[in-house]
Amino acid sequence: MSTAFAEIVVPSVVEDSPETRMRAAKEASRETARLTSDGKVRALHAIADALTAGSADIIAANARDLARGAAEGIGDALLDRLRLDEKRIAALADAVREVAALPDPVGRVVGGHRMPNGVALEQVRVPFGVVGAIYEARPNVTVDIAALALRSGNAVVLRGGSAARESNTVLVRVMRDALASAGVSSEAIQTVDDFGRAGATAMMHGRGLIDVLVPRGSASLIETVVTESTVPVIETGAGVVHIVLDESAPLDWSRDIVVNAKVQRPSVCNAVETVLVLRAAAQRVVPEVAAALLAQGVTIHGDEEIRRLVPAAVATTDEDWATEHMSLDLSMRVVGDLDEALAHIRRYSTGHTESIISTDALAIDRFLAEVDSAVVMANASTRFTDGGEFGFGAEVGISTQKLHARGPMGLAELTSTKWLARGAGQTRA
Amino acid sequence: MSTAFAEIVVPSVVEDSPETRMRAAKEASRETARLTSDGKVRALHAIADALTAGSADIIAANARDLARGAAEGIGDALLDRLRLDEKRIAALADAVREVAALPDPVGRVVGGHRMPNGVALEQVRVPFGVVGAIYEARPNVTVDIAALALRSGNAVVLRGGSAARESNTVLVRVMRDALASAGVSSEAIQTVDDFGRAGATAMMHGRGLIDVLVPRGSASLIETVVTESTVPVIETGAGVVHIVLDESAPLDWSRDIVVNAKVQRPSVCNAVETVLVLRAAAQRVVPEVAAALLAQGVTIHGDEEIRRLVPAAVATTDEDWATEHMSLDLSMRVVGDLDEALAHIRRYSTGHTESIISTDALAIDRFLAEVDSAVVMANASTRFTDGGEFGFGAEVGISTQKLHARGPMGLAELTSTKWLARGAGQTRA
Repeated sequence: MSTAFAEIVVPSVVEDSPETRMRAAKEASRETARLTSDGKVRALHAIADALTAGSADIIAANARDLARGAAEGIGDALLDRLRLDEKRIAALADAVREVAALPDPVGRVVGGHRMPNGVALEQVRVPFGVVGAIYEARPNVTVDIAALALRSGNAVVLRGGSAARESNTVLVRVMRDALASAGVSSEAIQTVDDFGRAGATAMMHGRGLIDVLVPRGSASLIETVVTESTVPVIETGAGVVHIVLDESAPLDWSRDIVVNAKVQRPSVCNAVETVLVLRAAAQRVVPEVAAALLAQGVTIHGDEEIRRLVPAAVATTDEDWATEHMSLDLSMRVVGDLDEALAHIRRYSTGHTESIISTDALAIDRFLAEVDSAVVMANASTRFTDGGEFGFGAEVGISTQKLHARGPMGLAELTSTKWLARGAGQTRA
Repeated sequence: MSTAFAEIVVPSVVEDSPETRMRAAKEASRETARLTSDGKVRALHAIADALTAGSADIIAANARDLARGAAEGIGDALLDRLRLDEKRIAALADAVREVAALPDPVGRVVGGHRMPNGVALEQVRVPFGVVGAIYEARPNVTVDIAALALRSGNAVVLRGGSAARESNTVLVRVMRDALASAGVSSEAIQTVDDFGRAGATAMMHGRGLIDVLVPRGSASLIETVVTESTVPVIETGAGVVHIVLDESAPLDWSRDIVVNAKVQRPSVCNAVETVLVLRAAAQRVVPEVAAALLAQGVTIHGDEEIRRLVPAAVATTDEDWATEHMSLDLSMRVVGDLDEALAHIRRYSTGHTESIISTDALAIDRFLAEVDSAVVMANASTRFTDGGEFGFGAEVGISTQKLHARGPMGLAELTSTKWLARGAGQTRA
């Protein structure tokens, strides 16, 4: 508030903190919520262009992260996930343009009717407001999440992993400058990386400032966010995924689907971790499925019955059943019947994806009805649980909770709804 | 697992605890999830009949609660909310029959398509599993929530207020016996009332056992549950509700709607708490609106400008703006323009319902677009924010959060979805 004495009053300095940044995002979210779809597309194209134009800066910052990572002895696989080069930055910019091309979920009328007294009710999609993301390692998540949040009319507060902190700092600066150049408040993209642990803590307790928090990363990161947050969280990702080979399982489907689900990309959440084989099918299918897996370099962790059929298998431990290996390791177990398979899944599944290979209609129906997971399949690879494969065009993550969103999340899952009621003086009788 | 020696092994005694009850509910939820709609209707009718048949027991238990409440000096209003008599029990049984008559949300196909490779995708409504409810005072919530949870295929774990503990104990016993008589596991309805505070704590931390937790009661109860829970919560109810009288506000609509919104039922969350009047309308509308309110026994808390127009008004305090009075108290304030009204609402609204009285299309559009609440109205009483009024047939509560459900919640909001994928050997390329 300005007064006549404004110039001679020492202005109160607001200290920069996670809270002031979240507050700035909240304030900016009023603007992003009202952007037209065209306005959002322009902002995203500005970001995509700025990423390409800023490649040199981004790569220089990334090189510092890589050097620090190498000095700290993080593994080659992690270093590779951390690395940004011209080609990856171009792919990142293209991904932003793809998000810009998606239909805008905001403003869609999803329901409504006229009340008996004439009041017109309408339920419309609106942005959440401020989306928070806490994530690890890969710096491209910084850009992905910001683009998805903006496309759906939200402001975003980011907290990336410390391994990528120099890269993330530059990526955020480039995106903020691009927003400003497109006439949108740069405050719509915030990072709290520079506050370390305190930044994440402030987000998890940012009631009224963060409308929804999406953790992306390891099971322990997700567990921490879910347990500690007082703001609503969408739990994503952890996948201890099962395939059941039923008595009637065709051998070729069993082999092709298990190999595809394990080998095609072992480091992702929809890769299979455990194969349960009905005893009546074990002798018929296990040797050939195992041979195909071993030929692809898979280490099979088998129970005693599996090891009798597959001499190359190593012994399973109790821990194996609950482990998301993210590697070419696969647990296999023989079960007496479908009941035992379902009980195993109830105990160890993270509720992500399970698939049965079977030609028995009753077994398939029972499996689809009784397995309590986000995606339940028959005769298809678990690798299909994916926003792109489901036709959403982009993926915010895969929700393993039941509230709000379940399974692959698209742009609509980054929105809420509100009810509009238009009357002409109506009162309640 | 039974063995040949089962009979001579001393069975391990599982100690009764909140956890064992939640676990029993989880187990029973597999059965309730698979009940046909007809099966659920039969179970609910059995409950309704049992409530009527058990009236004498229920009233006797309730009398003990009332006597204890009176001895502890709880107020007449609370005692009245606690009271159950033949008529109220009959109304409760009727409410259960009404819930039974609602369409079953479970099994509804809400989306789906065929993937390019032929895999058939289908998104279907499924029960959450176990719904938890933590609530206060009125024992009828015990029956309402149990009926709504069961109708949507869920098991339920209840934690009622200590003031109603004897009534709740009998109500739960009657409902559990009725379930058993209808051939449904009585474990589908659980209470943890007898564990006191530990029961509520166990529910709030019941990850994997409670799928969603619904708090109903005071703002402080809701705040505790939201802050402490590690399971997903749907935040309901608290309503600091605003009405804005625009410059163009018709006098009769202003008077009728404000009086209706405050007086018709002051103790509920959709009753108005604050009226903001644009300065340009104040002299024209405030005296008559205030006179109508005063005639109904309302105490007006006014700022200085209101008090100049309404000598009978008492002075507002800063606290008033943030208070849900639940009584015939109303705060009134004069604001310079719509911006100032919107800023006031941003600061003090709980995101429940706000309404503008106006004939100015631009002002109405701006209000509907910019107010970030579950229900935003023009020219209608805020009392319409109600599951019954919205045509849902029953109301689980009114969500003031943005995740999963926003505004009045019906049966569908007690369900989640899952994806079913049916293939013929497809693998991912």
